[in-house]
Amino acid sequence: MFEPHIYRQRRDTLCRAMGSGILLFVGHEAVAVNAPDHVVPFRQDSSFLYYFGHNVPGLVGIMDAGSGKHLLFGPNPDPEAFIWTGPQPSIQDLALAAGADEGLDIAVLPGHLNALMQHHAVVHFLPPYRPDTRIVLGHLLDLPLESLDERASCDLTRAVIAQRSVKSDLEIAEIEAALDISSAMYARVFAYACPGRTEQEVKAALEGEVLARGSRTSFASIVTTRGNVLHNHNANRTLAAGDLLLIDSGAESPNGYASDITRTFPVGGEFSPLQKDLYAIVLEAQKRAIDALGPGGMFVHAHMEAARAIVQGLKDMGVMQGNTDDAVREGAHALFFVHGIGHMLGLDCHDMESLGEDLVGYDATIARSTQFGLRSLRLARKVQPGFVATVEPGIYVIPELIASWRSQNRCASFIRYDAIERLNGFTGIRIEDDVVVEQGGARVLGTPIPKELWQMEQIGG
Amino acid sequence: MFEPHIYRQRRDTLCRAMGSGILLFVGHEAVAVNAPDHVVPFRQDSSFLYYFGHNVPGLVGIMDAGSGKHLLFGPNPDPEAFIWTGPQPSIQDLALAAGADEGLDIAVLPGHLNALMQHHAVVHFLPPYRPDTRIVLGHLLDLPLESLDERASCDLTRAVIAQRSVKSDLEIAEIEAALDISSAMYARVFAYACPGRTEQEVKAALEGEVLARGSRTSFASIVTTRGNVLHNHNANRTLAAGDLLLIDSGAESPNGYASDITRTFPVGGEFSPLQKDLYAIVLEAQKRAIDALGPGGMFVHAHMEAARAIVQGLKDMGVMQGNTDDAVREGAHALFFVHGIGHMLGLDCHDMESLGEDLVGYDATIARSTQFGLRSLRLARKVQPGFVATVEPGIYVIPELIASWRSQNRCASFIRYDAIERLNGFTGIRIEDDVVVEQGGARVLGTPIPKELWQMEQIGG
Repeated sequence: MFEPHIYRQRRDTLCRAMGSGILLFVGHEAVAVNAPDHVVPFRQDSSFLYYFGHNVPGLVGIMDAGSGKHLLFGPNPDPEAFIWTGPQPSIQDLALAAGADEGLDIAVLPGHLNALMQHHAVVHFLPPYRPDTRIVLGHLLDLPLESLDERASCDLTRAVIAQRSVKSDLEIAEIEAALDISSAMYARVFAYACPGRTEQEVKAALEGEVLARGSRTSFASIVTTRGNVLHNHNANRTLAAGDLLLIDSGAESPNGYASDITRTFPVGGEFSPLQKDLYAIVLEAQKRAIDALGPGGMFVHAHMEAARAIVQGLKDMGVMQGNTDDAVREGAHALFFVHGIGHMLGLDCHDMESLGEDLVGYDATIARSTQFGLRSLRLARKVQPGFVATVEPGIYVIPELIASWRSQNRCASFIRYDAIERLNGFTGIRIEDDVVVEQGGARVLGTPIPKELWQMEQIGG
Repeated sequence: MFEPHIYRQRRDTLCRAMGSGILLFVGHEAVAVNAPDHVVPFRQDSSFLYYFGHNVPGLVGIMDAGSGKHLLFGPNPDPEAFIWTGPQPSIQDLALAAGADEGLDIAVLPGHLNALMQHHAVVHFLPPYRPDTRIVLGHLLDLPLESLDERASCDLTRAVIAQRSVKSDLEIAEIEAALDISSAMYARVFAYACPGRTEQEVKAALEGEVLARGSRTSFASIVTTRGNVLHNHNANRTLAAGDLLLIDSGAESPNGYASDITRTFPVGGEFSPLQKDLYAIVLEAQKRAIDALGPGGMFVHAHMEAARAIVQGLKDMGVMQGNTDDAVREGAHALFFVHGIGHMLGLDCHDMESLGEDLVGYDATIARSTQFGLRSLRLARKVQPGFVATVEPGIYVIPELIASWRSQNRCASFIRYDAIERLNGFTGIRIEDDVVVEQGGARVLGTPIPKELWQMEQIGG
């Protein structure tokens, strides 16, 4: 955990932004995998973690925004804990560590909350996205579970997003600590992923680096030679020379901040000419997107810049044609670059998206597009110094998608369907780094992880 | 998955046992870790897995016990699934694979269930233990969530326990497949756990063997040099020669069956004389407990036999005294052997305990003891051929517990408090295997994993 005053400051800032009312933060409960004694590895809700710091189940935090009093409720430890888990801190210990005014037994929470509610009409809470939180909220507030989504506080949600969107130096250091683990993960798999290994074995080696540091992955790792299935979690293939291995993975820092890195490289150490051409295009798209990011710029511009780079590259290869800007405006690039350029990164890999993807990534100045491809862009709004985001263009050949577009003759003035078979057999390439927006532009965070074409040909051999 | 007819037979057996009524099985939903796109690795509810086989979120199964008609409800795949996850089976495909009569879209489930309920007064469901299941059940049956525990069907619960308690050859082969992974896990850590490694690194090596096989752990691995904290999940110590390393871990077979093995060995390859004496006692206790198990015998007798072996051993060491049977009857051994001898094993590590620990482990012939130690025994009742259980005695020196007993002069006629300091510095030893009860007695499952004293001295060096 950070020092207690960090959490106190964060909460004071939030209380000032809200002005008044009771701010109710329900932490995650332990959730059984398949029996009560076998629980899912515990990960706290990220907003709870941001304001109260404890990665411990069964906690509830309350801020009285008017009086500035902050309370933490939770279970007091089992007196026999020394037998089973070793001595555990009391709820008062936890409150002190989080800079809260008082720690109280969870049993007195309903009475406490009722008393507070008699003085304050408004209880603000964030939209619940877990069934455990939903049940606790429904019980505490005596509300039907179905009503909780609409009763959740828009004001609180917006205030939390505004605060969590801008990362402090302390938070950026955490993300870089997570990236240190990513560096070790990629160093390990670059040395390990040779012909004859299975994808699953590579995944185990990758995640072993995370486990060995007592950390956890920040999302489900993707380790696949079929990168054109974007969220491919099947990992049962055996690597063969000539395969492109795509690895999208991340780890958590000690305080729960995420890294998120993708690299794609040729198994056996040699790109085919087609793979090499497409790799160069994706890398160029990524660099141009990063260069397009600076304070005051829109994140969507980075997306568009990557799309332009991809169209230009595919035109050079004779697979696309026509005016580049027109092709991007029509979304023709999305046949190959089907997703968005990136997303916010912080305590969550897709940072704050449990609060609403559109609230995080869009605002009054820009609404989400309905166009295929662009509609998957998770972050579009103007960026500010302190924003941390991923930049992750890709090119994929998805036979079903090509067949579908071809049958509709979709974007035929930009896609050379007559030449598209020269991409046959290609799977997918994605290259992803994590950047922070600074006054001078975007800076790639962490120790550089190899991504240049010549570097990728030195691995996997 | 097994062949469809296996699931059909299991469900037909259950329907015959119940005779009539609607049997409603709600599978697990996907649960977000910290954002909707980042979900907990999915593991199906084990009873759902037993009767319907699919390790897929969002399914509901219905058996009409009277008519023998079995339906499976679930989401039909997203038409764009080929982009994100690759083509997915339809709910009708899933129904066929589970030997069910029909697969229907989850959207029609409420109407279908209401229609069935007009013909059958009784809907039987198992007690919910997850918040997601609780919400789905409350919604489907229009019942307050608080009422679900008492509304859950005792008849169905007992019928499911009776059926799942006796493992078929097919199931025993699955448990042995999980034990094959355990063998690889222990072979790996025996070679790896030398002075200078951290507990966390050993844990990563252990779990890496699971991941590399595309499997998952059957419970949270314990890897600790402080085995006297029984559920010690801190793993931040560095191994030193002279430490005892206790590893309690398990894996899942392809169809979700668990292994559960504990080994304890000296880091650096050499037991101290005290460690050696205590290891010999625990091993003797384990072997005598296994020998005490046979069809028609009570599982509690194996527990008592292990307790006797521990008392005898500690008497020989001058730490206990008096009549062995009296000491065990008074629970004096529980100062050192604080837990029960074992539990059922199957699709869950603590098999079926989500259905009620007492219903699984106790019956009309034996009630749970309130005595410290014995009250933690999870399985006590008469065993039958096909029962699979763990046998896992241990000896621990828990300073807080000794101080507490000593201050009460508890069991002073059996505990030699004047000599107990000769155990100072000892942590804990546990030895665990998985056994099946057969006509001739209990058989240890799987390829033997080293546990003899001389074998343990050949590792960790």
